[in-house]
Amino acid sequence: MVAPRYDVIGLGNAIVDVLARAEDDFLVKHGMAKGSMSLIDEARAEAIYAAMGPAIEVSGGSAANAIVGVASFGGRAAFIGTVKEDVLGGVFSHDIRAEGVTFNTTPFKNGPSTARSYILVTPDGERTMNTYLGAAQLLSAAEISEEEIQSAKVVYLEGYLWDPQNAKDAFLKAANIAHQAQRTVALTLSDAFCVDRYRDEFRRLIKDGTVDLLFANETELKSLYETADFESAITALREDTKFAVVTRSEKGAIVATKDKIEAIDAFPVDNVVDTTGAGDLFAAGFLYGFARGFPHIASAKLGALAAAEVISHLGARPERKLADLAREKRLLR
Amino acid sequence: MVAPRYDVIGLGNAIVDVLARAEDDFLVKHGMAKGSMSLIDEARAEAIYAAMGPAIEVSGGSAANAIVGVASFGGRAAFIGTVKEDVLGGVFSHDIRAEGVTFNTTPFKNGPSTARSYILVTPDGERTMNTYLGAAQLLSAAEISEEEIQSAKVVYLEGYLWDPQNAKDAFLKAANIAHQAQRTVALTLSDAFCVDRYRDEFRRLIKDGTVDLLFANETELKSLYETADFESAITALREDTKFAVVTRSEKGAIVATKDKIEAIDAFPVDNVVDTTGAGDLFAAGFLYGFARGFPHIASAKLGALAAAEVISHLGARPERKLADLAREKRLLR
Repeated sequence: MVAPRYDVIGLGNAIVDVLARAEDDFLVKHGMAKGSMSLIDEARAEAIYAAMGPAIEVSGGSAANAIVGVASFGGRAAFIGTVKEDVLGGVFSHDIRAEGVTFNTTPFKNGPSTARSYILVTPDGERTMNTYLGAAQLLSAAEISEEEIQSAKVVYLEGYLWDPQNAKDAFLKAANIAHQAQRTVALTLSDAFCVDRYRDEFRRLIKDGTVDLLFANETELKSLYETADFESAITALREDTKFAVVTRSEKGAIVATKDKIEAIDAFPVDNVVDTTGAGDLFAAGFLYGFARGFPHIASAKLGALAAAEVISHLGARPERKLADLAREKRLLR
Repeated sequence: MVAPRYDVIGLGNAIVDVLARAEDDFLVKHGMAKGSMSLIDEARAEAIYAAMGPAIEVSGGSAANAIVGVASFGGRAAFIGTVKEDVLGGVFSHDIRAEGVTFNTTPFKNGPSTARSYILVTPDGERTMNTYLGAAQLLSAAEISEEEIQSAKVVYLEGYLWDPQNAKDAFLKAANIAHQAQRTVALTLSDAFCVDRYRDEFRRLIKDGTVDLLFANETELKSLYETADFESAITALREDTKFAVVTRSEKGAIVATKDKIEAIDAFPVDNVVDTTGAGDLFAAGFLYGFARGFPHIASAKLGALAAAEVISHLGARPERKLADLAREKRLLR
């Protein structure tokens, strides 16, 4: 058995975010459900882009954001995801490596272009995403290196991978290798609409132990168990899984195990600019703490801190070095 | 003679900015003069990009930023500049049009890629630029439409156009058409290092009346007249030109004519994040006021307001609608 070289390895869609501010009217006019992530084809991507305001381009992708967060805390992190050898593919690869993340997936020379997510940020800071998966949807089991997966204490998977069949195969291959090496498999449910598409499969993955550690927000959890009542959803969750982290925006988060439920407060934020990446960065802090053997509450506080940092500016990756921020707040030594 | 359809038409390098934070050490290590704009080739562009931190991509270009500012004040504005038909060319075209600017220049199908400027923002908010001109340097007289130039009250040119010979031809053609139609020709000196490259030519353009309205900052002006003394530079300037706007960062700005010198204060800014675009946006406010027949001081105040907005966040284009901001501050009705 190899010694773990990474704290966390992430597997997800490699996406560049195209972020613009928009009024609520814009969402209505273009038939978008606020707060959702919709998959779109190239024609719709072009139509949305033509209609939306001036934008900034910044690397994103749910699991990729979380992995960058782990590295920003000082963790050893790696990412697997597919881009094309084009300008945005170069942007994605540069940015994730510049954060200190190992990224060895070979870019495709041909085929669809690098994935983009057109993210509309409304005045309340909420984000509505329209994602053209492009090269990201070609992720398959071929990209999963057994040696790399075995080298990480935790494998972190995003629910969005369940959309393309190839990526689902990659997901299961990675989970399998990890378990054979006695590693932890973590999953984020990604989005309530994603849960809606794959509810039964996600419940099976959680129940049969394919997933050891589940990340969900309140909306996703309610969607998973088809209930409007948070307490019922938590009860159902604890029957299915032994370990879960549920984030609740300004209400903080809870860590649920078979033994107990622990709650922590949200970190105060003066001005919420853009909630993109909040869940990803919460996961980053928790995963870093978990991989380093911190108590759950201490790990969750790192998550809350990272989420607060990322929602205070545009873009889904931290602007400050999270290790420095955590030291200032005395959450790390 | 056609009636003016635009308040301002700009001619400049069409560039996408690649912005990252960097420590002063990084500039020293890579032999960069802080605050400068250097032209780089593709190999150096790749080396700098590989070494720099995670970045955001946002449309830029000096004259383009100013023109976007004019549109943001509610002015009718157009831009001429060349991109390639590639991802960054699409980004540039989308963003400038999304601000309401008319942009009719046909993108190139082949040849070098769309221009990029790698901008390193140090902790003091200062920016150091490394520009790969690519498709922008292919701007030539062929892109200058006589009808479009005649249609604008002011033609705004950037000093950076003096670097490639083709662009210089385009510059002179535009100035010529404008003068035949009794329009105003404005020039920004762009950068002290640019002035250093073309001092004699810029002085000739100002003296012989090719340029009616000059924009410069204090450093550029001192470089133009090779003096360390601001008063001497102003005296020399007023001998050469009848109309100039000189910006002085936190010391405000002055408007110099043959008759008099008027000074205005800088607009207070809580937190200077990134000075990129300060000069461009000052020009935007002044040009908008000038084209609409405002007194010089009122125009300069719009300039100061726009400069203050753009230095309070990353990126060289306004995040707020400048017309709204100016109304809040009672600078516009």
